[in-house]
Amino acid sequence: MVRNLEYPKKPQNTLKRYNNRGTYDLGPIHTIINTTSVLHVSFPPGPDQPFPAILPMIGVMGSFDYPSASLDEPLDCYLHGYVSSRLMRIARDSAEGLPVSIAATKVDGLVLSLTPNSHSYNYRSAVLQGYAKPVDSDDEKIYAMQLITDKVVAKRWENTRVPPDNVEMTSTTILRVKIETGSGKIRQGGPHDEAKDESRDEITEKVWTGVVPVYEAFEAPIPSETNKVKEIPAYITSYVNSTNDGNKKTALNAVNEP
Amino acid sequence: MVRNLEYPKKPQNTLKRYNNRGTYDLGPIHTIINTTSVLHVSFPPGPDQPFPAILPMIGVMGSFDYPSASLDEPLDCYLHGYVSSRLMRIARDSAEGLPVSIAATKVDGLVLSLTPNSHSYNYRSAVLQGYAKPVDSDDEKIYAMQLITDKVVAKRWENTRVPPDNVEMTSTTILRVKIETGSGKIRQGGPHDEAKDESRDEITEKVWTGVVPVYEAFEAPIPSETNKVKEIPAYITSYVNSTNDGNKKTALNAVNEP
Repeated sequence: MVRNLEYPKKPQNTLKRYNNRGTYDLGPIHTIINTTSVLHVSFPPGPDQPFPAILPMIGVMGSFDYPSASLDEPLDCYLHGYVSSRLMRIARDSAEGLPVSIAATKVDGLVLSLTPNSHSYNYRSAVLQGYAKPVDSDDEKIYAMQLITDKVVAKRWENTRVPPDNVEMTSTTILRVKIETGSGKIRQGGPHDEAKDESRDEITEKVWTGVVPVYEAFEAPIPSETNKVKEIPAYITSYVNSTNDGNKKTALNAVNEP
Repeated sequence: MVRNLEYPKKPQNTLKRYNNRGTYDLGPIHTIINTTSVLHVSFPPGPDQPFPAILPMIGVMGSFDYPSASLDEPLDCYLHGYVSSRLMRIARDSAEGLPVSIAATKVDGLVLSLTPNSHSYNYRSAVLQGYAKPVDSDDEKIYAMQLITDKVVAKRWENTRVPPDNVEMTSTTILRVKIETGSGKIRQGGPHDEAKDESRDEITEKVWTGVVPVYEAFEAPIPSETNKVKEIPAYITSYVNSTNDGNKKTALNAVNEP
């Protein structure tokens, strides 16, 4: 029997509401992280600060030790983006690393029901929690930089000027987050109204209900002023087209009840 | 002379990097919040917890006291979504409210340069920090519910079964966040490469550089199985079309240097 690996249910990640939409499976959670361009990463408040820090960052799941691991296996989250020197110091100096929460949400549709209260979005969201440490080894840093670059456009890394030179290696900071736990939530389907409203003709004859599918779309690539490559390379065109097709299909599929 | 209102620069919101892209102006920051479907809201860690809590929520800027206030004036942020009973208790019982950080990011393009290190996204991001309190008065709750519903689809509120009944009023929790401070970051333009790479023909002749514009797209609305309104109402069609046009234009404009 094939069993899905699940994140452990701890007090901070146990879903309390709509938990029929919840998942602890590694596969769907890691997929949501990897298909979201920008993650929001939250750090504990600084000294004399009540507010947690929150930053947009680029991130991707991967395993330097087992690069062939698939998305439903245990993976680290590699993060790229500017982190203040205070946070970097904690990440570097503490034994465990810096505790972080990582959130990703994709909206798949506007769900329009009879009453404002039952309006909703179709969406896929994931939260991971773990400890972040800066990556020190050059090999692991290059592994993560390639994952991150290929997340922006598949196969981009091998089609740019690589490897990074010494200055680029030193100036790039990558955080590796060892994941403690995580959870996901997926809402799909049409509007769910209550019988008290669905049975009243004066309401149902007036209020349109349904779903407006939503997806992230790419327009045709626009060359820079200094670009010298005359034709847009096939790997870019193919990435743009396949992402558009996949995103649109996901949004349309989400209209169906799970 | 017309002067833009700015959020105060405090240690926690002063932008330290790429600060030529930064803004403290209320107008652009509030606009980013209002055009982002799902916000990520971060709360301080619970007892014996190292990790901040982070949740996807729907939120919108508004002023119950001055409903005619425009987006570049001081506003509260109204949040809707499930918050744990622990957080709700802090929000309700503490004098100031629950400290929260609210983040919104819109991706406008993939910026493809000669080297992996100078790859980037065109984006608009905003962070607000403030104190959250549950809204108690029915009038203010209805004001916020209407703002939130009309954020999903403009004019939707008046085209649904309103007002909410007693059960709906009681079961809905809205948080009002008094904003302490905020900041925004906007990146637009093409790739910026270094002279050391731009001067080498073997690189520039091989690596395509430019921007892939990215925007949130709506597909044609799909009626629910129980929908009885034969034609899609004009306010929905018009919202779908104008949002698509506006989003696409924003992504294409972002390709130009600011």
